[in-house]
Amino acid sequence: MSPRVALRILGLLLMLFSLTLVPPILISWLFADGDWHAFAIAMVITAGTGALVYWPNRRAHKELRTRDGFLITVLFWSVLGLFGSLPLMLSSAPSLSWTDAVFESFSGLTTTGATVLTGIDLLPEGIRYYRQQLQWLGGMGIVVLAVAILPTLGIGGMQLYRTEIPGPLKDSKLTPRITETAKALWYIYAALTIICGLAYWLAGMNWFDALGHSFSTVAIGGFSTHDASIGYFDSPTIEQICVVFMVISSASFGLHFAVWREKRLSHYLHDPEFRFFVSFLALLSLLSIATLLADPNYTQWKALRHGLFEAVSVATTTGFGVADFSLWPGALPFMLFVAAFVGACSGSAGGGMKVIRILLIFKQGMREVTRLIHPTAVIAIKVGKIRVTDGVAQAVWGFFAVYVLLFFLMLIGLLATGLDQVTAWSAVGSALNNLGPGLGEVATDFGEIPALAKWILVVAMVLGRLEIFTVLVLFTPAFWRR
Amino acid sequence: MSPRVALRILGLLLMLFSLTLVPPILISWLFADGDWHAFAIAMVITAGTGALVYWPNRRAHKELRTRDGFLITVLFWSVLGLFGSLPLMLSSAPSLSWTDAVFESFSGLTTTGATVLTGIDLLPEGIRYYRQQLQWLGGMGIVVLAVAILPTLGIGGMQLYRTEIPGPLKDSKLTPRITETAKALWYIYAALTIICGLAYWLAGMNWFDALGHSFSTVAIGGFSTHDASIGYFDSPTIEQICVVFMVISSASFGLHFAVWREKRLSHYLHDPEFRFFVSFLALLSLLSIATLLADPNYTQWKALRHGLFEAVSVATTTGFGVADFSLWPGALPFMLFVAAFVGACSGSAGGGMKVIRILLIFKQGMREVTRLIHPTAVIAIKVGKIRVTDGVAQAVWGFFAVYVLLFFLMLIGLLATGLDQVTAWSAVGSALNNLGPGLGEVATDFGEIPALAKWILVVAMVLGRLEIFTVLVLFTPAFWRR
Ligand SMILES: [K+]
Ligand SMILES: [K+]
Repeated sequence: MSPRVALRILGLLLMLFSLTLVPPILISWLFADGDWHAFAIAMVITAGTGALVYWPNRRAHKELRTRDGFLITVLFWSVLGLFGSLPLMLSSAPSLSWTDAVFESFSGLTTTGATVLTGIDLLPEGIRYYRQQLQWLGGMGIVVLAVAILPTLGIGGMQLYRTEIPGPLKDSKLTPRITETAKALWYIYAALTIICGLAYWLAGMNWFDALGHSFSTVAIGGFSTHDASIGYFDSPTIEQICVVFMVISSASFGLHFAVWREKRLSHYLHDPEFRFFVSFLALLSLLSIATLLADPNYTQWKALRHGLFEAVSVATTTGFGVADFSLWPGALPFMLFVAAFVGACSGSAGGGMKVIRILLIFKQGMREVTRLIHPTAVIAIKVGKIRVTDGVAQAVWGFFAVYVLLFFLMLIGLLATGLDQVTAWSAVGSALNNLGPGLGEVATDFGEIPALAKWILVVAMVLGRLEIFTVLVLFTPAFWRR
Repeated sequence: MSPRVALRILGLLLMLFSLTLVPPILISWLFADGDWHAFAIAMVITAGTGALVYWPNRRAHKELRTRDGFLITVLFWSVLGLFGSLPLMLSSAPSLSWTDAVFESFSGLTTTGATVLTGIDLLPEGIRYYRQQLQWLGGMGIVVLAVAILPTLGIGGMQLYRTEIPGPLKDSKLTPRITETAKALWYIYAALTIICGLAYWLAGMNWFDALGHSFSTVAIGGFSTHDASIGYFDSPTIEQICVVFMVISSASFGLHFAVWREKRLSHYLHDPEFRFFVSFLALLSLLSIATLLADPNYTQWKALRHGLFEAVSVATTTGFGVADFSLWPGALPFMLFVAAFVGACSGSAGGGMKVIRILLIFKQGMREVTRLIHPTAVIAIKVGKIRVTDGVAQAVWGFFAVYVLLFFLMLIGLLATGLDQVTAWSAVGSALNNLGPGLGEVATDFGEIPALAKWILVVAMVLGRLEIFTVLVLFTPAFWRR
């Protein structure tokens, strides 16, 4: 791809993104929070930069190839993450440093949901809304990325699902295919958001909270308009609505698409990833509830409510809270946190390594044991009716190994900034899995850790969000040799 | 394999093992520590049990098949670990509980080197010697296991080296091949021990310490006759001798064998695993020294001595100490500890996942990145001149995944006993990697943790020692169906 084509796309993207600052301006004006100029200035800077980058390259047209997908994807998230930080710096109220604003912006767009803020309830409404919208936009981008683009790029075994989405184009031309799939995904995503928001509103949230939380629920984001997160509402109904939508939204949107297209709900029952995911969530919820029931500080009802909610919230990598699970007894905080490494289903806005990969790794591990007893047996691995090729299996292993390696490298980086081990490992895990909350010092917010640590975590969020290889491949000489 | 054959072998093994209690009796008698009866009673019990098990089955002869290797190997370590605990319970001085004695015995035989004891310097000489001998015997067993048996069983990709050891029998008959290879390995192991012991003695250790430490050095064991470990001698010469023999002994004994047979030292230079291992140790030592140099509490000389020694001791999974590295600054304790997960070379008595596996995983990770750019390229993976087959690669991945999974499961178990996260993860890591020291509460000894935690760690030591799959396979129904 010529640099001029990249610049043209980037310019367009920035101009489009500047339009997303209109809603926060309206909210700001509606609540008269005196902060609309922050968004207006950010809008002018973003649109202006976009125009400056776009105009000289406006005629640089060229069909995009599969390979260009890597660069565009990484540019997309990096540039939007940076420009998304503008309102957070310009606004009168949180008045964040550059580091903090960038952290918060990337945390939003990558749907991680880790925050440097405290006292969110007291911030201007414009900013409170803006953070939620960042997650929603990021979530939408990720769903398109995960369903339509990454499988085509062959990232970490996701080509397994390449054939699932129908479309006339299965060759290396990206654009028409993405446009078509993106439209269908957009309808599903928007519909889910509307239903979720209405449900919240009917359950007692005001429209502002309902809107904001529907955004961050469907995006598996975890940002809230309140410090106390979902716990603020202290409503079992709202918690149950939230649990339902966290589960739906962390299932594959490719699967939702198939169900919607063929009007067959039974697809859910037959999808191996979804089945494994729901079973895993159920097991984890039961373990959490049982552990809390054994704790004298918890009533039965509270153990049930909190156990279910936190297990689902952490395991789906949403990161909403009704209680501080990091203070829970025994192995529970660790166990829930590790579940976030498994993460959500592929093709959702959720994070982690993705259920399908863990399922494949599990099946292959079983095969190795069988092989020890029957060394000459040829044992095929299947997911549902799809036979897993060696190429897919190797890609999954490669992903797993690099995930673990990067986790350790970034953990060493964080420890070097002086953080204790629990804070450091959970901060990296939270960022890499796009979860949100951590343990130790970062159980509630990431405000107090060193600036260098925040930058490492920004890198971790982007790496996790873009399935690692999308980013890593740009650092190989082979990518730049054409 | 019929149970009677298994019992015959087990009986023989116990009677043989009882003979290894003669040296501690002699030591006890020589130092007049008044404790010889502990070993004598243990000897009678062990030999008696052995005879009782052997005699009724003495005629149960049957050629062993490859598959029987799994069961015999696991029985070997479990039964010896249990009977090895007898002197530690019977002796007047440490007077350990059953749990503690079993922990110490397994820690010795698996060459882990984690101890429940403090005040080792004050114990009867017989016991102080016995612990060292346990490691030496365990180390010998592991070298034979790792070079001659595990590759034949196809554990976790170790079949890569199956062709390395020459021998007339490459079929499924185990016994003759093992006997022949074991003899050669025994010569090398014994020679290394003698040279190491002499070097220690010439450098100033008394003969008792020189003997004991040569045992635990060559076995990559890490037990010492002093609480302060190698630090007790405060001698740069002894430390340097120790570093040299830790590196030699954690290289593959299959490689040593090849060098000795063909009288060509250049084999070391050309072995990919050994080269990677030495480079990794060098890098780690430099990082440790550099970090300590930046610390005002360390003189240049002390940074050099301690940095080199601890890096090599932890990364080779020996676990000797000249300083408490768990108190070192920044990311250093964590980084060294994670290096133990990489571990020693295959075919040594060292622990960890083994360098060759990490090397293979690394090469395959690189291949996946290349594949993203050239999706249709066929890229073979080679280690030196050996081409890695898909079967080997899959076995390595399977090993890696199950290693990680078991690590997490046992970690959750330890957390459930009430240990803090740093203590728990490092204790499991230390046991699974057969390292010895941990971090947090188990930085110096394992005496104070709950009994249940100790039992979980015993399982971890055996799992790590027997390359996990040797044990796991026994828990599959398919293994018992013939
Ligand atoms: K999240
Ligand atoms: K050791």
